[in-house]
Amino acid sequence: MKLKHKIFHLVEKGSHGSKMNLIFDYSIMALIILNTIAIILKSIPEINSHIRIFLIEFEIFSVIIFSIEYLLRIYVADMTHPSPSKTKSIVKFIFSPYGIIDLLAILPFYLPFIISIDLRFLRILRLMRFLRLMKINRYNSSLKLIGEVIKEKKTELAMTGFITLLILLIASFLMYDVEGKVQPEKFPNILACFWWAIATLTTVGYGDVYPITALGKFISGVIATVGIGIVALPTGIISAGFMGKIENKKNPVQKCPHCGKNTQP
Amino acid sequence: MKLKHKIFHLVEKGSHGSKMNLIFDYSIMALIILNTIAIILKSIPEINSHIRIFLIEFEIFSVIIFSIEYLLRIYVADMTHPSPSKTKSIVKFIFSPYGIIDLLAILPFYLPFIISIDLRFLRILRLMRFLRLMKINRYNSSLKLIGEVIKEKKTELAMTGFITLLILLIASFLMYDVEGKVQPEKFPNILACFWWAIATLTTVGYGDVYPITALGKFISGVIATVGIGIVALPTGIISAGFMGKIENKKNPVQKCPHCGKNTQP
Amino acid sequence: MKLKHKIFHLVEKGSHGSKMNLIFDYSIMALIILNTIAIILKSIPEINSHIRIFLIEFEIFSVIIFSIEYLLRIYVADMTHPSPSKTKSIVKFIFSPYGIIDLLAILPFYLPFIISIDLRFLRILRLMRFLRLMKINRYNSSLKLIGEVIKEKKTELAMTGFITLLILLIASFLMYDVEGKVQPEKFPNILACFWWAIATLTTVGYGDVYPITALGKFISGVIATVGIGIVALPTGIISAGFMGKIENKKNPVQKCPHCGKNTQP
Amino acid sequence: MKLKHKIFHLVEKGSHGSKMNLIFDYSIMALIILNTIAIILKSIPEINSHIRIFLIEFEIFSVIIFSIEYLLRIYVADMTHPSPSKTKSIVKFIFSPYGIIDLLAILPFYLPFIISIDLRFLRILRLMRFLRLMKINRYNSSLKLIGEVIKEKKTELAMTGFITLLILLIASFLMYDVEGKVQPEKFPNILACFWWAIATLTTVGYGDVYPITALGKFISGVIATVGIGIVALPTGIISAGFMGKIENKKNPVQKCPHCGKNTQP
Repeated sequence: MKLKHKIFHLVEKGSHGSKMNLIFDYSIMALIILNTIAIILKSIPEINSHIRIFLIEFEIFSVIIFSIEYLLRIYVADMTHPSPSKTKSIVKFIFSPYGIIDLLAILPFYLPFIISIDLRFLRILRLMRFLRLMKINRYNSSLKLIGEVIKEKKTELAMTGFITLLILLIASFLMYDVEGKVQPEKFPNILACFWWAIATLTTVGYGDVYPITALGKFISGVIATVGIGIVALPTGIISAGFMGKIENKKNPVQKCPHCGKNTQP
Repeated sequence: MKLKHKIFHLVEKGSHGSKMNLIFDYSIMALIILNTIAIILKSIPEINSHIRIFLIEFEIFSVIIFSIEYLLRIYVADMTHPSPSKTKSIVKFIFSPYGIIDLLAILPFYLPFIISIDLRFLRILRLMRFLRLMKINRYNSSLKLIGEVIKEKKTELAMTGFITLLILLIASFLMYDVEGKVQPEKFPNILACFWWAIATLTTVGYGDVYPITALGKFISGVIATVGIGIVALPTGIISAGFMGKIENKKNPVQKCPHCGKNTQP
Repeated sequence: MKLKHKIFHLVEKGSHGSKMNLIFDYSIMALIILNTIAIILKSIPEINSHIRIFLIEFEIFSVIIFSIEYLLRIYVADMTHPSPSKTKSIVKFIFSPYGIIDLLAILPFYLPFIISIDLRFLRILRLMRFLRLMKINRYNSSLKLIGEVIKEKKTELAMTGFITLLILLIASFLMYDVEGKVQPEKFPNILACFWWAIATLTTVGYGDVYPITALGKFISGVIATVGIGIVALPTGIISAGFMGKIENKKNPVQKCPHCGKNTQP
Repeated sequence: MKLKHKIFHLVEKGSHGSKMNLIFDYSIMALIILNTIAIILKSIPEINSHIRIFLIEFEIFSVIIFSIEYLLRIYVADMTHPSPSKTKSIVKFIFSPYGIIDLLAILPFYLPFIISIDLRFLRILRLMRFLRLMKINRYNSSLKLIGEVIKEKKTELAMTGFITLLILLIASFLMYDVEGKVQPEKFPNILACFWWAIATLTTVGYGDVYPITALGKFISGVIATVGIGIVALPTGIISAGFMGKIENKKNPVQKCPHCGKNTQP
């Protein structure tokens, strides 16, 4: 039972100040980062076979560690997710957000042994472990603040998104009629025009598709200018959101701590 | 008469909590979205003829539904747009903003049967029905807030627009003299230079036209840098606008703590 | 003398509500805009000779009007710019900002008759007349507000500019060493690298020059990311400036209008 | 001793209002700027040999001046960096931030005489002298303000950076699977995809790599749109930071109007 307690303290992040705990946390984090770098390096064909073998070995090693960690978390599930029965606790943990993240991060490694399909594209799930990093206490409050602001301004931001979509649609429809006849290979259909519209509104402008007719250039100019407003709107909304948060913190009820009355009667 | 009341409750959105009403609203919305997707898909030449026939059938179906809805709205016009006479009510509805939107959305479908011109480019009018979506109550207040902020800061934003236009003009005139001689095919006239100017100021930068002379590059650099300021100005104005709205909501009256009267009489 | 008064009332914009005055103001404005459009159209070689002749005639016409306006302003200079002597008033007007603008706008037209150099590039001076439009009262306060905010935050914005310049210089120096050897035709010298740096930092990205080495791409990525911050800084500064202006207007001394005491003691 | 005092007053910037001091300060600044321009010009191969010789002579001249300045600073180190012994003062100065900057700016010039490696790439260190310019009093407070805001919002900005990195990684992983097969020469590995991701998210969009598949274009569109949010977040955070600074300055103590005590004890 004592060992179980130790494991519980170990895997539960950020809550206890013990040195052992910190070392465990940072080791797992370092492993997540190194694992990601390994996946990136492995994708480069120029990497020679010696390094490649090392990268594969490192991947196996890190997945084993992640698997052990996952099993340990199942082992202490009755402490982290208290339930009437042990089984319920484990089920609760497995289907908790972090439980799913942890499973998805190791599953792609084991699946090929069971079923014989190419699941390499699932390696992206490994990245989800990065979300674990967010549990670090110091950054937690920042993330919460950002999340709160976005949540509070949800409808305004959604409205901006809706207006943006409408502008994109209008631009695509227009462009299809205007440029579609002149450059049928670049603007063959409305979907292709939508690709141009999004590249223009976000001001990415790769240069693979661009209007050549006078009217097309005019529409393009309007869309690009509107793009500035599309940046200004959410920025303004979010700025106001952050400001509101700061003000709320400063004057929460605005009671005077000395006489108990509100400072703004 | 009872049926008429039911129709009235049905077509007037968001006001009543009945299930029937909600189903009607969301069906129309779904139809608007699906109809738009159908138009987009139909423009893709690779789509095979089976799907194409289905898309055309779906378009006919949706236009019929929209037409029925339009007729129903005319039928209850005396309730939604009360007037001394029934005819006046109908005229009032037909020339109301939403009445025009609804007519424009179905008209392009019927026109070819009457006159024999190619009116396919009018399909863009179908998008106007999207504005109906804005009637959803939840988003209505957000849209109103965004609209109010833009309205309040109208002159400041117009001023920014005017300054932007002046900068674009100056840049185009300069570029015509500087690059027009070296790259006559890319900068043949001031209008073409304006196209370059807008692509640079909005930082889209397709790469179809760009300066090659030292002076041209210098002007381009200045314009691009000014572009950052051009983004900063409206963003700052709109941020301040949203903040002002929040503050007004918080301290609507601003009573003096000494005598209890309003500070802004 | 009565005529002189009338002329004075006519040319002094925005101050009097007379209809005659408004017509004069808007005519001059329309002429400024049309004149600019004429210059732009004249630069297009495809324009046929009939329209070209009309454009030249219109240009002559508008310059004559501007000249008459200028002479009228000289005529009433002793009223608009009161001085001990008539001559001093005229000199005062001619060297006032608007006097210089007005002269520069018509001078390029007359100069070729006196000296025989090609002064067509001076046509850009015609654009300066646009500044006259700013005299419209309604937009004047907005322009003043924008000007005040920029003035107030001058040092912060200059600091941002200085940091930006430093980042551009560092990036150019680095890129010259990194990419200069691999792509000597694209990054031949530090000045060319500066062109790349400014196109990247402002996120224009024409695509005429871009790094191909790994290190070059890394530097480019860093610069582009820094570019986001470079947009965020002035935007934040200007937002705060506009907010401050609004707050100042709201609570100027914050005295209660009823009891005369400050509301925030 | 009197000379030493004079030197001390001379090299310590901004603190004394003497004319001599100002001339010295601005001369050094002008020299820093001219020196940078000289390095840039020297890198242009088209510059003819006469100017090139002049530039090299100017570089030697400016480095000699910087060296004399450095020696003078060592000479008065016991006054600028008071310590028990003269040697300790000099060591203190040499290893102070400005001491290191000054040494690094002149070292690359002398090193080739001692060791025979090509150290031309160290010329970038010359730019560090620009940091000296920041010592000008007027801009010092602005720089401090910007620094404070960034410092205060450090964790929020770091969080934004972390989220950005995660989005970039996810996009790169996805793009490698989607476009890697179709355009293996443009998306050969995840690192190359990361280059595309950063060019898209920052909306630079050089146009050297862009998706051609429908799914790739969809991902690209999402990333570019997210890019707008990525600009909005830090801008909002920094705006709120600047606003907070202004408010703090205005209401530093916040006394209760009822009992007169501070509301934030």
